[in-house]
Amino acid sequence: MDFSSFLTSLGTSCVIFVVLVLLFVWLSRKPGNAVVYYPNRILKGMDPFEGGSITRNPFAWIREALSSTEQDIINMSGVDSAVHFVFLTTVLGILVLSGVVLLPVLLPVSATDNSVQTNHTISNGTFNDLDKLAMGHIKEGSSRFWAFLLATYWVSFVAYYLLWKAYNHVSDLRAAALISPEVRAENFAILVRDIPHPPEGQTRKEQVDSYFRTIYPDTFYRSMVVTDNKEVNKIWEELEGYKKKLAHAEAIYADSKKNGKPEGIRPTNKTGCLGLTGKKVDSIEYYNKKINELIPKLEAEQKVTLREKQQGSALVFFNSQLTAASAAQSLHAQMVDKWTIMDAPEPRQHIWTNLHKTFYERQIRQYVVYVFVALTIIFYMIPITFISALTTLVNLEKLLPFLKPVVSMATIKTVLEAYLPQLALIIFLAILPNLLLFLSKAEGIPSVSHAGRAASGKYFYFTVFNVFIGVTIGGSLIASLKSIEKHPNLNSVVTLLATSLPASATFFLTYVALKFFVGYGLELSRIVPLIIYHLKRKYLCKTEAERKEAWAPGDLGLATRVPGDMLIVTIVLCYSVIAPIIIPFGALYFALGWLVLRNQALKVYVPSYESYGRMWPHINVRIVASLLLYQVLMVGYFGIKKFYYAPLLIPLPILSLFFAFVCRKKFYRFFQSTALEIACRELKETPNMEVIFRSFIPPSLSAGKADEEEFEDALSHGVSRSSSFV
Amino acid sequence: MDFSSFLTSLGTSCVIFVVLVLLFVWLSRKPGNAVVYYPNRILKGMDPFEGGSITRNPFAWIREALSSTEQDIINMSGVDSAVHFVFLTTVLGILVLSGVVLLPVLLPVSATDNSVQTNHTISNGTFNDLDKLAMGHIKEGSSRFWAFLLATYWVSFVAYYLLWKAYNHVSDLRAAALISPEVRAENFAILVRDIPHPPEGQTRKEQVDSYFRTIYPDTFYRSMVVTDNKEVNKIWEELEGYKKKLAHAEAIYADSKKNGKPEGIRPTNKTGCLGLTGKKVDSIEYYNKKINELIPKLEAEQKVTLREKQQGSALVFFNSQLTAASAAQSLHAQMVDKWTIMDAPEPRQHIWTNLHKTFYERQIRQYVVYVFVALTIIFYMIPITFISALTTLVNLEKLLPFLKPVVSMATIKTVLEAYLPQLALIIFLAILPNLLLFLSKAEGIPSVSHAGRAASGKYFYFTVFNVFIGVTIGGSLIASLKSIEKHPNLNSVVTLLATSLPASATFFLTYVALKFFVGYGLELSRIVPLIIYHLKRKYLCKTEAERKEAWAPGDLGLATRVPGDMLIVTIVLCYSVIAPIIIPFGALYFALGWLVLRNQALKVYVPSYESYGRMWPHINVRIVASLLLYQVLMVGYFGIKKFYYAPLLIPLPILSLFFAFVCRKKFYRFFQSTALEIACRELKETPNMEVIFRSFIPPSLSAGKADEEEFEDALSHGVSRSSSFV
Repeated sequence: MDFSSFLTSLGTSCVIFVVLVLLFVWLSRKPGNAVVYYPNRILKGMDPFEGGSITRNPFAWIREALSSTEQDIINMSGVDSAVHFVFLTTVLGILVLSGVVLLPVLLPVSATDNSVQTNHTISNGTFNDLDKLAMGHIKEGSSRFWAFLLATYWVSFVAYYLLWKAYNHVSDLRAAALISPEVRAENFAILVRDIPHPPEGQTRKEQVDSYFRTIYPDTFYRSMVVTDNKEVNKIWEELEGYKKKLAHAEAIYADSKKNGKPEGIRPTNKTGCLGLTGKKVDSIEYYNKKINELIPKLEAEQKVTLREKQQGSALVFFNSQLTAASAAQSLHAQMVDKWTIMDAPEPRQHIWTNLHKTFYERQIRQYVVYVFVALTIIFYMIPITFISALTTLVNLEKLLPFLKPVVSMATIKTVLEAYLPQLALIIFLAILPNLLLFLSKAEGIPSVSHAGRAASGKYFYFTVFNVFIGVTIGGSLIASLKSIEKHPNLNSVVTLLATSLPASATFFLTYVALKFFVGYGLELSRIVPLIIYHLKRKYLCKTEAERKEAWAPGDLGLATRVPGDMLIVTIVLCYSVIAPIIIPFGALYFALGWLVLRNQALKVYVPSYESYGRMWPHINVRIVASLLLYQVLMVGYFGIKKFYYAPLLIPLPILSLFFAFVCRKKFYRFFQSTALEIACRELKETPNMEVIFRSFIPPSLSAGKADEEEFEDALSHGVSRSSSFV
Repeated sequence: MDFSSFLTSLGTSCVIFVVLVLLFVWLSRKPGNAVVYYPNRILKGMDPFEGGSITRNPFAWIREALSSTEQDIINMSGVDSAVHFVFLTTVLGILVLSGVVLLPVLLPVSATDNSVQTNHTISNGTFNDLDKLAMGHIKEGSSRFWAFLLATYWVSFVAYYLLWKAYNHVSDLRAAALISPEVRAENFAILVRDIPHPPEGQTRKEQVDSYFRTIYPDTFYRSMVVTDNKEVNKIWEELEGYKKKLAHAEAIYADSKKNGKPEGIRPTNKTGCLGLTGKKVDSIEYYNKKINELIPKLEAEQKVTLREKQQGSALVFFNSQLTAASAAQSLHAQMVDKWTIMDAPEPRQHIWTNLHKTFYERQIRQYVVYVFVALTIIFYMIPITFISALTTLVNLEKLLPFLKPVVSMATIKTVLEAYLPQLALIIFLAILPNLLLFLSKAEGIPSVSHAGRAASGKYFYFTVFNVFIGVTIGGSLIASLKSIEKHPNLNSVVTLLATSLPASATFFLTYVALKFFVGYGLELSRIVPLIIYHLKRKYLCKTEAERKEAWAPGDLGLATRVPGDMLIVTIVLCYSVIAPIIIPFGALYFALGWLVLRNQALKVYVPSYESYGRMWPHINVRIVASLLLYQVLMVGYFGIKKFYYAPLLIPLPILSLFFAFVCRKKFYRFFQSTALEIACRELKETPNMEVIFRSFIPPSLSAGKADEEEFEDALSHGVSRSSSFV
């Protein structure tokens, strides 16, 4: 790929981005699209167009995004989103502070080195004109490398400083959010697992109650034994399905009354497979009959579930937040594998089916998943290497000869040449997150946010190992395989990686550009959700609930967003000194990302759970991991360049490990458990324990329950119901 | 060393042992020696000779030891001693169960292998006749190794099984001891460290009180701010010294009245350096004057200390054990380096000067100590290697020619040849424990028992690395150094170790025999303390307190006993399959050790602290470490013997790591903190909080305090003193 190809790629991306932004400005001003562009505001009961988005400047959204404070974000989108913005600004800060020093210093230093002949480029496929600006342009052993060595230190120290500040800030954010006087149900509950078999003549409920009433005689409120809800969920879902269908059918009937005959046309459906075969029946009657059949069935199954399907796990409720917070941190039984206790997750993020998993089952599942993921990471390398070789245009022409006439056209050729490998990579990576989320849930993790963090971690290692290392080494791998076989040690792997780094610089430069222009363009304009919403509204939705479902915005998806951004961090950090020209692109990526996401967080996405910044320790450790990779690679690269002071860089990786260790020691525990000085906060109102308790009952069990006496079997009472509001 | 030399060594040891035991039987029956042989009983107010030690069978002590139950040990000597006996019986069990299978199977298998010529011995200095019974006697690649391979598995599985049982048992012992209804002061207190600077206008005491009163409004009792007691301790010690001297002088004066003139001779002393120079004064008057001078000085200093020398650390007392136990396990402040909280150690085992050390100081001290110990471990190897080469008799004759006439005598020569290297080693190791204890205290550990455990761990690694590996490799090291230099990897170290193992078998056989016969003989007979006591009583002691001090028995010294025994465990395990003849010696060591220590624990030693079995996790992990070393060495040794199924042993080390991991996961946390189901135990009496509080005041601060109003400054009050007995 030559320089013009790179410029074309950049130009096209930029044009696409501008088109998408204009589209966004135009579309978002139409009131009919408000539910697509302002769902978060609408759901919070605010005027979608407040602040003048529609009347004044079409770029008012930029002003709004820039002028919004961190507190606005927390109010509109929660602490987790605010923490994500801390991540974006921290990385942006690192890149800007690095760029400010590196660009004016390093570019002239490499450009003015004339000792290397101009036609001698060390990289295959890197554009010759920009090569001059990279570290590869400098002669081996030159004393000009001192500038690069100092630059490596500068980038590292900037990163340490900003990360330390960010960790402090996030910790304060978490503390401020947790100390706020709102009543939060999960603060009054703990999750108890690994309950031993109840003694003879005692039910599980009695066992749990007596255990906790002995230890906490004053503050114990009630317990809720976890049940196996598989059957009752099935019936409940069936029932809900029929209810929706009934509402839909009734809406059609009402419509037909308005539009056609005044008596209306009663909708019909077939009872067989997928509604295509079987007897034709009147829908409203049929669904009503089904619902009436299912309700008693559900009630019977609810009773059976509560009485007979109790499992060795329970939620225990206390009148006092302090007791709950300190109970979750304390050892209760002599053996760790009995009466395991942890903070109860928010009611909305329970993974109910994981709650009852026993200690050993969890441990075994965890290791099985780890091994499986490790194998996947290692063996995905093979297809990725294959794809990155396959998707060069020359290879594609050979393999798919019918594409030749298209591919031969000059413009298309340039565009394809620029984008094909990156596109292949992006699609390839899009398949993964769900697999990893599924695997993380299979570990037996009890909350959605925790599973998200676990999946995010796996995804990060996956992208770094496979994409970054895979693509970088990819080309030169097979050629170098023999040399690795001869000296199979870590040293030669680093050397190999460092050798192949510069050759892949362009690939990643284009990857970053593509990702931010097109990715953020699509993100901002919401073309796909818009089209889907309008299609659904026109052809499928009949009831208000259905329409609401059609525009439901979903959440920010931080679990997959973070590893995607982390890959960019890794790439930009690793190239920051080798080819400093990548820094502005990286900075632009995070600046644009901040702007677009700010808009989306304020107006579009609704967080589906809140973990109060528990993601941050993971982000921090992964940024440090990227930094470590960068430092090790620099040691290798300086070595290749025969710069004999390369060992001066060795303190840096050690410093990074030390930094990660200190951060973990100092900050991490507060992200695991609630500090008691915060748990003893004042509340703005007396908590209604009954409401708190009921918020944890899964919908399939609470459905159709006006009277709560029915819960007696699995859900215990406190000492006295009347005195329970403490 | 030949076979007769070995027998001589064994015989001499045995004779010494028998003589010492007879001495013990004879001496312990004299009532005048009761304070040396039965101090623990006397201090507990029991009749020293109960159970008929004196009247009947002279070996009644053996019957008593054998018939004593675990509960007797706990009553007389505490849980820590009982746990030590679990250690001894577990190791004994491993050795007996291994020996029962290995001896009848492996000895014939090696003895009947005639394929190797009898004069071909693989070891230098191993006795030829016993060589036949070792694994080295079997021809390389022989299928007879299958028996040895299976034996390796048998020993490992026996160890896993018994260790697992023992861990369960110790955990139950700890639980039973902690749940017993005695009131224990330390269960009502927590140790708070890293208290931030108090806000403007608040004293430290007010700060601590308000902090804990906010979090625990119902259960907070009082706090005691840690003070810098250096000055006050100095004055107090001086005062105590003069008090003792005064009592001594008065006793002399009283004696002189009885024996000499009726008016008596008033003792005198000189006031100068060491009582040798200066003016001669009347002792009683002089000491009285000094005491009267010091008492107001002490009181003034106490006031200053309490008011002005408060440090960033405090003991906080609660009315409820449950609150204390759960507070010690919970995070209190947002940052881990503020308001760090842990269980308060027993009052008698506080290391007061370490209490105020801050988080970072502790961390840094810890790592500095680790690095220092690691360096010591590595570089002690050099003198040890040197000594083990030097102490062969031939070398000694060369170096110290004047010894020649003595050494040439046949008997002396044999004895010296048998003992010299072992004696050198034992003396060498005796210097170490105090250094390691000092280093462990320097880490900033707040309790004596914890420092003991830390020192014990260091000592274990020290002995294993230096004694076992050092002595084993010692001889062959220099010769093999070049081969290691060529292939510097772990593999060749294991191979080297495995090659040199058999050659050192005799050395260790003699070492074990010497240690148990002479060591336990001295231990049982208490010759040294007996002589010291009688000398002191005769020439130095005048007052009752001085006499009591002269026979004070001290404690069991488990911190140094355990690593000593662990070295034997390591040696016997490592040789168990290579030279199974070592197993009976090992078993005898632990059986005799059990018997002798049982006697000492019941009658002699008084534990100086109680940690409720916290030593066990360390013992367990170290036995597993020995097992791991043994398994890795066996893989290496089978490899040397060209037995091609050696890789079949590779699962064993992995299994050991897994075993250690599971043990830690399952049991360890209960040894760190008190389980709440145990902390909510019933007490047999209402705790007197005032007594509990006062028990933590260091003697130098509480001395001469009848009225407690004086503590106001550093020691805070609860809400209301009158209602404090809850």
